[in-house]
Amino acid sequence: MTATAELVTEVGYADTSIGAVAARAGVGKDTIYRRWSGKAELVYEAVFTQTEAAPAPDTGSLTGDLTALLEALIQEFSTPAAAAALPGLLADFAADPELQVRIRSDFLTPAKDGLVPVFERSVQRGEANPGLPVDLVLDTLAGAVFFHVALVGEQPGPGLATQLAAIVGRGIETR
Amino acid sequence: MTATAELVTEVGYADTSIGAVAARAGVGKDTIYRRWSGKAELVYEAVFTQTEAAPAPDTGSLTGDLTALLEALIQEFSTPAAAAALPGLLADFAADPELQVRIRSDFLTPAKDGLVPVFERSVQRGEANPGLPVDLVLDTLAGAVFFHVALVGEQPGPGLATQLAAIVGRGIETR
Repeated sequence: MTATAELVTEVGYADTSIGAVAARAGVGKDTIYRRWSGKAELVYEAVFTQTEAAPAPDTGSLTGDLTALLEALIQEFSTPAAAAALPGLLADFAADPELQVRIRSDFLTPAKDGLVPVFERSVQRGEANPGLPVDLVLDTLAGAVFFHVALVGEQPGPGLATQLAAIVGRGIETR
Repeated sequence: MTATAELVTEVGYADTSIGAVAARAGVGKDTIYRRWSGKAELVYEAVFTQTEAAPAPDTGSLTGDLTALLEALIQEFSTPAAAAALPGLLADFAADPELQVRIRSDFLTPAKDGLVPVFERSVQRGEANPGLPVDLVLDTLAGAVFFHVALVGEQPGPGLATQLAAIVGRGIETR
């Protein structure tokens, strides 16, 4: 994982190879292929699933929970390794339906499941409706951060998480 | 433009080359290079700037205007050429800061400027505050559609534009 993240940061996603990762980690290529199907899956796990273990904190309000969630997401998307890997990685995912299905079931679904408590708590507080399209809300948060930070090339200002949480939080609140 | 869109759809972004576009269009490569800096800029213009000329319609409400905007965006992101081009194109943009700056000033900024009336009208109707972070709202809409349709691989259902417009529209309304 460390060898992969370092290599992506140094040479970029396109020039990272399984062979170079193996050499840096001091293992054989077959050792890597026993656990990962290829470069995209290896890089994805090295760059993005390190920090997802922590459950989303209960801050007492939907907007507060979303702000905390977005701060973690912005931090994750802004690391040198993630910034170097993300666009090439997304292109590989989109071009390979099999890989897309595997990433979705192995990583995205568990990550989203971990966020369900945020929305359950907001329903219990009476802030949001039970019928919320949770998947779409999460795609909205992640897509907004990706477009704003990785694609449009904006530096994520200190107010970004708060602004986005305010927009989306108010958008899904009951009235 | 037609040759480019056809080729991307048939062989994918990675295998599209300026040479192949030139051959299909019956012109020399230098004719293409006189107008476009390279593949990314050519494909971007062929795939995305065909339908942006029409101004966003005034439907009488912020949510209605956003729904119309999102329907156009979803349609644009879902064409065979756009679906084939988008991920590879985004990877090329993100890897090339110079290209990113040029695309931003030549295409994104005018496209966003064209959408400013939607938010101006909503301020005039008393629906939204004048201080709205318009850029962030637009990145949110585009990012949500990109993540949901192109990346996660969801088919855009008929309710997608309405659901997203409801979330973002309510999120930016004054109370």
